[in-house]
Amino acid sequence: MKETKHHIPFEITESLIVGLKVLIDSNDDNAILALLKDVHYADIAELLDDLSLDQATYVIKLLDSETTADILAELEDDVREKVLQNLSIKEIVEEIQELDSDDAADLLADLSPDRKQKVIAQMDDKDLVADVQELLTYAEDTAGGLMAKELVKVYETWTVAGCLRKIRAQAKDVKRVHSIYVVNKEEKLIGRLSLKDLLIANNEIKIIDIYIPKVDSVHVDEDAEEVAKLMAKYDLEAIPVINDNKVLLGRITIDDIVDVIIEEAEKDYQLAAGITQDVDAEDSILALTRARLPWLFLGLLGGVGAAVIMGGFETIIEDFPMILLFTPLIAAMAGNVGVQSSAIIVQGLANDEVRGSVNNRLIKEMFLAALNGIILALFLFVFILAWKQDFGTALAISLSLVVVIIVAGIIGTFIPLSLHKKGIDPAIATGPFITTCNDIFGILIYFSIAKFILNI
Amino acid sequence: MKETKHHIPFEITESLIVGLKVLIDSNDDNAILALLKDVHYADIAELLDDLSLDQATYVIKLLDSETTADILAELEDDVREKVLQNLSIKEIVEEIQELDSDDAADLLADLSPDRKQKVIAQMDDKDLVADVQELLTYAEDTAGGLMAKELVKVYETWTVAGCLRKIRAQAKDVKRVHSIYVVNKEEKLIGRLSLKDLLIANNEIKIIDIYIPKVDSVHVDEDAEEVAKLMAKYDLEAIPVINDNKVLLGRITIDDIVDVIIEEAEKDYQLAAGITQDVDAEDSILALTRARLPWLFLGLLGGVGAAVIMGGFETIIEDFPMILLFTPLIAAMAGNVGVQSSAIIVQGLANDEVRGSVNNRLIKEMFLAALNGIILALFLFVFILAWKQDFGTALAISLSLVVVIIVAGIIGTFIPLSLHKKGIDPAIATGPFITTCNDIFGILIYFSIAKFILNI
Repeated sequence: MKETKHHIPFEITESLIVGLKVLIDSNDDNAILALLKDVHYADIAELLDDLSLDQATYVIKLLDSETTADILAELEDDVREKVLQNLSIKEIVEEIQELDSDDAADLLADLSPDRKQKVIAQMDDKDLVADVQELLTYAEDTAGGLMAKELVKVYETWTVAGCLRKIRAQAKDVKRVHSIYVVNKEEKLIGRLSLKDLLIANNEIKIIDIYIPKVDSVHVDEDAEEVAKLMAKYDLEAIPVINDNKVLLGRITIDDIVDVIIEEAEKDYQLAAGITQDVDAEDSILALTRARLPWLFLGLLGGVGAAVIMGGFETIIEDFPMILLFTPLIAAMAGNVGVQSSAIIVQGLANDEVRGSVNNRLIKEMFLAALNGIILALFLFVFILAWKQDFGTALAISLSLVVVIIVAGIIGTFIPLSLHKKGIDPAIATGPFITTCNDIFGILIYFSIAKFILNI
Repeated sequence: MKETKHHIPFEITESLIVGLKVLIDSNDDNAILALLKDVHYADIAELLDDLSLDQATYVIKLLDSETTADILAELEDDVREKVLQNLSIKEIVEEIQELDSDDAADLLADLSPDRKQKVIAQMDDKDLVADVQELLTYAEDTAGGLMAKELVKVYETWTVAGCLRKIRAQAKDVKRVHSIYVVNKEEKLIGRLSLKDLLIANNEIKIIDIYIPKVDSVHVDEDAEEVAKLMAKYDLEAIPVINDNKVLLGRITIDDIVDVIIEEAEKDYQLAAGITQDVDAEDSILALTRARLPWLFLGLLGGVGAAVIMGGFETIIEDFPMILLFTPLIAAMAGNVGVQSSAIIVQGLANDEVRGSVNNRLIKEMFLAALNGIILALFLFVFILAWKQDFGTALAISLSLVVVIIVAGIIGTFIPLSLHKKGIDPAIATGPFITTCNDIFGILIYFSIAKFILNI
């Protein structure tokens, strides 16, 4: 068991990073060790993310493997992969043997097939090797990819006293005992016990007489996001993982699920903002460009499309140039309404709150958009009338605004719903995608209506 | 302790909701009880959110208070407030006495001051009354507002055997024992024990000899979001809460923190999409309009501003009408770049990853935007040249695009950073706010540059 030696919250400042870099560059090992003594591995991992690869590797090689194993498990994926390339097979073996099976498997998965084999061949702990090799067979974003093999398991035939003895032995390998899982002789999960129950129970009683026969579990192939939803909804701190035959394979703890929830939320937020890859503010200009350029390019195509459409309405532009002044307004409103309605659908789908038929939802959004559109159009109508004293133009633009907002709302509702139906993550539809669609449709509708009204 | 009787995941279907409504309307109590038997309270709460207020109240009154207390704690705030108004003081007292102190305090906070006093006066459990009255003094979004008073606490002078006896008594009131907190005779938190440690330890040993003296804790006034960040980062499942004198006041468990993380993520996502209040797809058209209209109105003002600006460039419009065809493109690109750069800053600030000077960050964003802008402008230049064979116009528009993208990136970076510096949540700056700012600036820059180049 690990003792908590650090003080939280630990603040990572610019000067701390600069100071650490200076110490590394001058090879002042003692000062580095003193600086990082009692600092939590999660904080050291955050510090290392801000160093160069060589500097990070230097620190990893300097610290003892008990600490660095946990640091490696916390590092960002791209940094970790590069740091691992700088470590020898022997060093990696030392790190991995310090870790729980789930973190060990994640680390191994970052190695090349060749190095992975070499590391496994040199590992002494054959139980860990077996566990890790099993875990490596599951997809990363499934229950199997999240679970650890470490858990406390008792057989239904044991007594409370026998249980306590066995648990003391098993518990040494398990960081936190959440539940004690009860299995039958075929290793099938049949129930659970809490440590608390066991403490209160009489020593001679058999497990079969006190265990709780109903126990929540997830299938090993269940989607990681679904597991996260379940654990969040039912306030679970750990959940056992089973296979088709109900054999107990491992358990997932809430700390790993918290990471899944945060990553998922960040991904959705970035998708809505038009960022296609997981980047952060500290990434390189090139990495940020790779993540940002694709949606911008889509926006460019949308803008070019809009220009071509407008170019097709040559006569209306010549006769009523005022119409052109309001195209940015129409495009912006179409984009905003589309993003709003798609965001609500995306969130509703994520929370399993969107039920009922697609038609009902589209009708609701239509009324909603119409209400919003009419209120906004009234303001716009009054403004244009006051500004240009041209009733026909004011009417044409305002009326178009209502129709554009309704269509934008419907597109924003329909696209994520239909993507979801096809099994595609609806979050990709938010942001620039909806905005661009709506820009083009909005301008097409706007000019068509304006042409129709003004030519009467 | 509660047994897990339900099967998860439990699927809430449209037909289940309709069926339940029919049963309620025909007062078929036995059928309702049979239908909801063994259903988890979190699922019943989700079902009730989809019923009318009267229907929801009917179900609450029908079920036993042990179940309904948990349901009430899970209901959405607005639904709960209304259901509580339909319950008698006596009914509310029964519900509250079933709950842990944190949920009980949340329920009481939803009552009018008058009804709150009446409920408290009728509560038998005086310990719970004292706990709840203390909890009601803390702000909702602080550690104090999140914590529960239920925890397992031992004094440093006790022995392991004595501890186990006392813990068995205390543990009956505590759903899950995460850590055992060790206090001195002044009730100051001095360390912790895990149940596992206690199980492994010898009965005669004193706590003072085996406890872990360093223990993470948060101050009772700490911001809820900061607590969430801490617990997520350091993989904590529970954290004790202390006051200025280090006196142990309560503890926060990870299940409540998961809710904070999810709510925060949803709020940020909605802000980015231009939704100002917490709404979901099932809310009424009026509630959705209230949440959506403010940002749309801002967008309308932005569009009107853009129209006025463009109106001021009359001569350029008359001489070079093509310029107007590309205003939607310019506005869209300015908006997209602004949202991208602000989203990265907002997320970086949320993760405490944004360090270093504001100037450095603006310079980085400038280079990034310039790189993106030049790539996109090259495409645009070739397209316009091919379409209209007009070198001057193609140059003017493409060059403007580069400048507009750079300015949009800088605005998108600067606004959230300066809001954060002033202690305002930078998430409000994303979405429509940045988009609208950038629309106006973008168009102003676009026309100024076009006028300058084309008039040469």
